[in-house]
Amino acid sequence: MALTGMSIVGGERVMGTGDAIRGENPRTAEPLQPEYRDVSLAEIDRACRLAFACFDQYRQLAESTRAEFLERIAEEIEAIGSPLIERAMLETGLPQARLEGERGRTCTQLRLFASLLRSGNSQDLRIDTAMPDRQPLPRADIRMRQIGVGPVAVFGASNFPLAFSVAGGDTASALAAGCPVVVKAHPAHPGTSELVAEAICRALVACDIPKGVFSLVFASTHELGQALVSHPCIQAVGFTGSRQGGLALLSIAQSRPQPIPVYAEMSSINPVLLLPDALQKQSGPLAEGFIASLALGAGQFCTNPGLVLAIKGEALNQFKARLTQVITDVVPQVMLSRSIHRAYQQGIEHFDSVADRLAEGINSEAPNTCQAIVYHTTAAHYLDTPVLHNEVFGAVSLLVECDSLEEMQGLLEQLEGQLTLTVHLDDQDQDVLQTLLPVLERRAGRILLNGWPTGVEVCHAMVHGGPYPATSDVRTTSVGSAAIQRFLRPVCYQNFPDQLLPPQLKQQTAGEYKRLVDGIWQ
Amino acid sequence: MALTGMSIVGGERVMGTGDAIRGENPRTAEPLQPEYRDVSLAEIDRACRLAFACFDQYRQLAESTRAEFLERIAEEIEAIGSPLIERAMLETGLPQARLEGERGRTCTQLRLFASLLRSGNSQDLRIDTAMPDRQPLPRADIRMRQIGVGPVAVFGASNFPLAFSVAGGDTASALAAGCPVVVKAHPAHPGTSELVAEAICRALVACDIPKGVFSLVFASTHELGQALVSHPCIQAVGFTGSRQGGLALLSIAQSRPQPIPVYAEMSSINPVLLLPDALQKQSGPLAEGFIASLALGAGQFCTNPGLVLAIKGEALNQFKARLTQVITDVVPQVMLSRSIHRAYQQGIEHFDSVADRLAEGINSEAPNTCQAIVYHTTAAHYLDTPVLHNEVFGAVSLLVECDSLEEMQGLLEQLEGQLTLTVHLDDQDQDVLQTLLPVLERRAGRILLNGWPTGVEVCHAMVHGGPYPATSDVRTTSVGSAAIQRFLRPVCYQNFPDQLLPPQLKQQTAGEYKRLVDGIWQ
Repeated sequence: MALTGMSIVGGERVMGTGDAIRGENPRTAEPLQPEYRDVSLAEIDRACRLAFACFDQYRQLAESTRAEFLERIAEEIEAIGSPLIERAMLETGLPQARLEGERGRTCTQLRLFASLLRSGNSQDLRIDTAMPDRQPLPRADIRMRQIGVGPVAVFGASNFPLAFSVAGGDTASALAAGCPVVVKAHPAHPGTSELVAEAICRALVACDIPKGVFSLVFASTHELGQALVSHPCIQAVGFTGSRQGGLALLSIAQSRPQPIPVYAEMSSINPVLLLPDALQKQSGPLAEGFIASLALGAGQFCTNPGLVLAIKGEALNQFKARLTQVITDVVPQVMLSRSIHRAYQQGIEHFDSVADRLAEGINSEAPNTCQAIVYHTTAAHYLDTPVLHNEVFGAVSLLVECDSLEEMQGLLEQLEGQLTLTVHLDDQDQDVLQTLLPVLERRAGRILLNGWPTGVEVCHAMVHGGPYPATSDVRTTSVGSAAIQRFLRPVCYQNFPDQLLPPQLKQQTAGEYKRLVDGIWQ
Repeated sequence: MALTGMSIVGGERVMGTGDAIRGENPRTAEPLQPEYRDVSLAEIDRACRLAFACFDQYRQLAESTRAEFLERIAEEIEAIGSPLIERAMLETGLPQARLEGERGRTCTQLRLFASLLRSGNSQDLRIDTAMPDRQPLPRADIRMRQIGVGPVAVFGASNFPLAFSVAGGDTASALAAGCPVVVKAHPAHPGTSELVAEAICRALVACDIPKGVFSLVFASTHELGQALVSHPCIQAVGFTGSRQGGLALLSIAQSRPQPIPVYAEMSSINPVLLLPDALQKQSGPLAEGFIASLALGAGQFCTNPGLVLAIKGEALNQFKARLTQVITDVVPQVMLSRSIHRAYQQGIEHFDSVADRLAEGINSEAPNTCQAIVYHTTAAHYLDTPVLHNEVFGAVSLLVECDSLEEMQGLLEQLEGQLTLTVHLDDQDQDVLQTLLPVLERRAGRILLNGWPTGVEVCHAMVHGGPYPATSDVRTTSVGSAAIQRFLRPVCYQNFPDQLLPPQLKQQTAGEYKRLVDGIWQ
């Protein structure tokens, strides 16, 4: 499995001619072989045109065929074996167990969408039967199904080189929806990207899927990214990354002659509320759980707990004391890349200028390492200091010590939109939760009780989304089976004879699909 | 039921202090009493704040309570009786039977959403049960429901003074979703708007709904519309009207610090394809049906058939001959308003400069009347002439005479997105339809066979939507029960004890709601 350094456009390898991209080992700061190069604008255009050219054919394949394709991608990724894990370790500094777990998650996602396709539940199928004798006017037979929106551009994340990258959630859900995909490779893990792209191409061939359904392009400049998002063949964009990056794509997509949806998962500090009774009874375990969640993977998660809210008092003092003990043993971890580490350093410089450190882990002079740090401040200072509302990507969190529950609730209303809000509560806190719940629902996509936000389950009921700026589209999720809805649109068929209807809406397939018939689910 | 000329903000009448708005009888071009006036920016702000202030309370009401509210609105509208129809006739020039039908449609919409709320099918409820013994990590209990996005600004249409205005589809679906509504009254039917708003306010009182849930503001300037769409309390916008108007709202919504979705239904010419066998066998009835659909309501429908595609030959000559006969008897009809009539005149001036009239109805010198006109041209000229792709709102259509099926299919690919695409076919045309269907699906939200696009059924399977510029969001519909999805967003509840869960997700309500439990609908 020698890496070639090439992009893959519609199944064919293409050597780029633009800027050089080279992976770097964040543990050593040494460059990795081979060198990749940006493709040309002409290759971006070709990838998008090939995707569009096969869109009708691909979306009309049987759901079972698309399911087999997704399952085959999972098998091909697993079949790469340890070379995939080893390359990802080199490029990201992430440990073996984490990457093996992430590979499992990636394949689970692909198989979840395959099972969704097989279940007959992937579309919002509806049938209103004809009423030829209705007065004053007859009603025609009217049926609805959903089809893919069209080719999708996917911008993978650096922090999940498998699960949110080339064959990650956006790609899996778009392919499940019947949409061809053009992936812009993340420059921080080019070799991992190539290995996974090759696996997808092997699955394309094995399942006899049109090759235009998948392309992987190295395209690190703004000009190339803009060309991809503004290409008329592209009909939606999936993105996971910084707020700045997501907003740039959103702006391009909205400036097109035909605007298209952008699903950008951007920025969240995932506040954790420690309610009084829980803090009273559990200050030690809460401190331990918090530091474990904070330090996990050097804090490089969208759901990292970047803000803790609690009420001043003896219980909070005990929490702080235990937290300070526990964090002392947290070893420095290497971060994903030089640019991630630089952003972490800038973030803590900003925090240091306006807030005090409460406690910190072990520091290191080794390249690209992240020291765990917890800051603390008052609610009043927090509300007055916009920089403290920003996400610092890494094992950094801020404890805001409130004077009262009312102050905590008032602060909640001032927060930006979040992916998650976590509440620790015990018996005496239930009334408080009832009071807070409406605010929590308005401010986040997922509300957790007595847990920690890191760890996003891949399942049907998951919402990995939330109000702006957590995401650019509050109506959706990027994790779980509901993510397919981002890439579907409804089409209505009026007065079609049975033989001309799509298979999901024909009379004789009634038993295989869940359908709303005259208002009743069947 | 004396009209007061006032706006209604959170249940209270407010006399505006800004620009004057006065209804005008389009039949006589005479102004109508009373005079209305734009509200101030402060009143726009107050309406939005009141809406937000009661959002949590309103969205947490039982679905049955919201259903009663919607049903009561319908009853209150019906209870106005003939004064509503008479006022709407004065302000719009529409005939009595049409407005009585539209009132029925408006009440049907409200009752459809009420029945959806009562059915337990209005939300995408999902439950993934806990797996405490799962290896390597346990799974928490994870549940999803949907809540309203927040207060919605509704910009009503002029062409449906009841069904797409104050208590029209956008308002009904937003209220059903649990969202308070601030309606910007359409200046062309202010008295009709006030009467319907009063009916909603009576329903608010009767059902004990917080008064902030509904406001009607007269706000005719760009500055006031901008203030409404950019208000931080507003979380979504519903609009039906011109492309220019929809794009202006979209631009404002996207420039907010927190961008929000805009559901704008804008521009569609609703192409009709006459396939060879159908044209051969039915040229006479097709010509008659076409002119009837074209002339209905002076062509003032979003789904008016503004483009007809057919292949040159003897059958088409017969169609043209019959069409020319039939249109000769079409009487001029008064249009909705002076500005609609002006746009119609400009539209036909543009068409006259680049295409020939094939046939026309009776003309009139009476104010604001619309003469039915059918133009014709070649496919090549059509493709070379952008102005011919524009919608001319009124009883105006263009017959494009193609040399071949291939030319017709190529032209289809060049069309902008449409609300509807209609195909007339007979036995020998079925293979052609199969070939065209993928293109049709990509270019429109609704595909009709052997019918006419005017007349949009209010039902579960309806899609009144489509690719840009038909709408600003291809993933949705503005007619039918699926329209509720525009104003909902998912929220996930992780590890909640039963007593803290919202009612739709509690264990003991399992029988009342459709829920996806561990991947199986129950």
